[in-house]
Amino acid sequence: MSVTAAQGFTAAGIAAGIKANGNPDLALVVNNGPRLAAAGVFTSNRVKAAPVHWSEQVLRGGTVSAVVLNSGGANACTGPKGFQDTHATAEKVAATLNEHGLGEHNAGEVAVASTGLIGVLLPMDKLLPGIETAAAALSEDGGEAAAVAIKTTDTVHKTATVSQDGWTVGGMAKGAGMLAPGLATMLVVLTTDADVDGPALDKALRSATRTTFDRVDSDGCMSTNDTVLLLASGASGRTPAPADFAEAVRKVCDDLARQLIGDAEGASKDIRIEVIGAASEDDAVEVGRSIARNNLLKCAIHGEDPNWGRVLSAIGTTGAAFDPDRLNVAINGVWVCKNGSVGEDRDLVSMKDREVRITADLSTGGESAVIWANDLTADYVHENSAYSS
Amino acid sequence: MSVTAAQGFTAAGIAAGIKANGNPDLALVVNNGPRLAAAGVFTSNRVKAAPVHWSEQVLRGGTVSAVVLNSGGANACTGPKGFQDTHATAEKVAATLNEHGLGEHNAGEVAVASTGLIGVLLPMDKLLPGIETAAAALSEDGGEAAAVAIKTTDTVHKTATVSQDGWTVGGMAKGAGMLAPGLATMLVVLTTDADVDGPALDKALRSATRTTFDRVDSDGCMSTNDTVLLLASGASGRTPAPADFAEAVRKVCDDLARQLIGDAEGASKDIRIEVIGAASEDDAVEVGRSIARNNLLKCAIHGEDPNWGRVLSAIGTTGAAFDPDRLNVAINGVWVCKNGSVGEDRDLVSMKDREVRITADLSTGGESAVIWANDLTADYVHENSAYSS
Repeated sequence: MSVTAAQGFTAAGIAAGIKANGNPDLALVVNNGPRLAAAGVFTSNRVKAAPVHWSEQVLRGGTVSAVVLNSGGANACTGPKGFQDTHATAEKVAATLNEHGLGEHNAGEVAVASTGLIGVLLPMDKLLPGIETAAAALSEDGGEAAAVAIKTTDTVHKTATVSQDGWTVGGMAKGAGMLAPGLATMLVVLTTDADVDGPALDKALRSATRTTFDRVDSDGCMSTNDTVLLLASGASGRTPAPADFAEAVRKVCDDLARQLIGDAEGASKDIRIEVIGAASEDDAVEVGRSIARNNLLKCAIHGEDPNWGRVLSAIGTTGAAFDPDRLNVAINGVWVCKNGSVGEDRDLVSMKDREVRITADLSTGGESAVIWANDLTADYVHENSAYSS
Repeated sequence: MSVTAAQGFTAAGIAAGIKANGNPDLALVVNNGPRLAAAGVFTSNRVKAAPVHWSEQVLRGGTVSAVVLNSGGANACTGPKGFQDTHATAEKVAATLNEHGLGEHNAGEVAVASTGLIGVLLPMDKLLPGIETAAAALSEDGGEAAAVAIKTTDTVHKTATVSQDGWTVGGMAKGAGMLAPGLATMLVVLTTDADVDGPALDKALRSATRTTFDRVDSDGCMSTNDTVLLLASGASGRTPAPADFAEAVRKVCDDLARQLIGDAEGASKDIRIEVIGAASEDDAVEVGRSIARNNLLKCAIHGEDPNWGRVLSAIGTTGAAFDPDRLNVAINGVWVCKNGSVGEDRDLVSMKDREVRITADLSTGGESAVIWANDLTADYVHENSAYSS
């Protein structure tokens, strides 16, 4: 049900011709109100794409009436012309929606998101007419089409929904490579018909992304374009308890984040890394990320080799509090490393399933964190060795 | 010429049966004096192998009369028994050399280094008799055999020598995977017949490793066993000027480091990343490492794709001083990115050669650094997916 599961939203996904292969590449999501509240989080990469610079400004106003997203080009590292193109895109969306009598829009309340190759200008001669096509196709059933249109190397489109007590949070996501925290190479639009104001949306979204999208680390590479938006229409007329709302947003983010890992470029394994016994949550996250990014371990997991030595060598590169002689590591529930040395028989570990669980116990405190990663495969290399991937 | 290029050293490399395939796996290097000065640098991984713990203690005394090195097992994450085995190895070397009348040795002056799989105890029933065989084989021509015996997945053995004014610095190295700073998965023994005391050796060695071994980053993975030793016999009777000696040590380290990158597991490209225009050397190193560790870029280089967008996205994850709109990137001399955007025609870039040069100009200051890396290949994945690699 995607971004149109919640009341008050229409969406469309169409092929504007940005992608050479003719696949859908332009999505439009419109908030029809009555409320136009919004929150957003963006990549922490200091090299940001033009649409990220634009949308950060838009979100500062706290009001978003529409979001336009394109695949087929990231509009990153494209200089002043790239920013002008993003600006022109937002202007075109506002003007077109106004012409169609679909609310009162102005460019300053239109968020823009782009994904695709870095360093190439968007074909504006295709993108701008595409906005007219998308506006004409807007519907309350358009959520799926929008989710399809933002795919790049994704093999499936990703949507999730949570409904309760008469209100709904739904969303769509794309992201398959450059998946790493802060955030991953992802575009995500969440919508809700709950009657929630901007500050509450912001709080719920930041809390949710901190433990979901920020903790998927497929390939250690941080994108220039990551954007996660949450729009509220208030159309349900319901105002949930803040904790209930935050939990619903977290669930949708968690679901979408798990789908991103499950469809990461070239991956054959989804690796759930849980760090327990940490002195602090920051320590747990630091250790989890270090394990997640260890190429040798990622290769071992690909080969279904419970190579716990590579887990320990990754832990050893962190500044977290631990004693090497008290580290324990389990792979799929078998404690193959105890007290920093050989533990249970590694032959007891079965790694046939796609999901592999690594538990690293720092034996220092009571904090924990979960990081999701993928294995490293020849397919990942092939997919990312060719130009334009 | 390896570790026996300098006067005053004998060495041997033999097959003790530690490796199941019968290849050479045990090396012995003996300093016959008159001086027995030594310096060492070790992995900064907090999970350290037993021989690293042992040799760090030995080096604290400033005297090393012999070094024993084995491939076929890292003796890391092996608990108290692993440390006992290292201790027993040093005791056996001292006793055996004394029995053979080859100087006066005690275990506290025998450094031990191991490399191979983590988490497995060494076969002491093979290693200890091997020490007797190695002692019997010691010779002034044994440097090559020693270099061969420390190989793991290395396809060639690595040696280097610099001679001038009657004194020599020579050395051997191994290392093919887990190659990353602080240091790489490397064992290196350097010898010199220059008459240099411990503090001067230490200063020259730290200065040299800082800009050589510490700046090769083949796969971002830091080892538990890295050891670089420099032994001085004083046998030439010459005391070089400190600057001359330091430069000779640096040259040998640089030569060996370049050989490590050239023989890294599965690599098809050697990538020389030079960061210029940095506000500080630390900034230049941080940016260089970030580029070196970007898997997507490493894949692109493998595919001979001058994908400068991935260079910028890697730079953007650092804390270095720069303005995204003033970044310039050249690949093999073609400035494909100027002022953070599209520069010269990427089709002008030829990437057929094994060596690929990336220059990243931060346009902020006058500092620079060079980091060496490798591409990411299906062969790397294959080599590291199988158990026991």
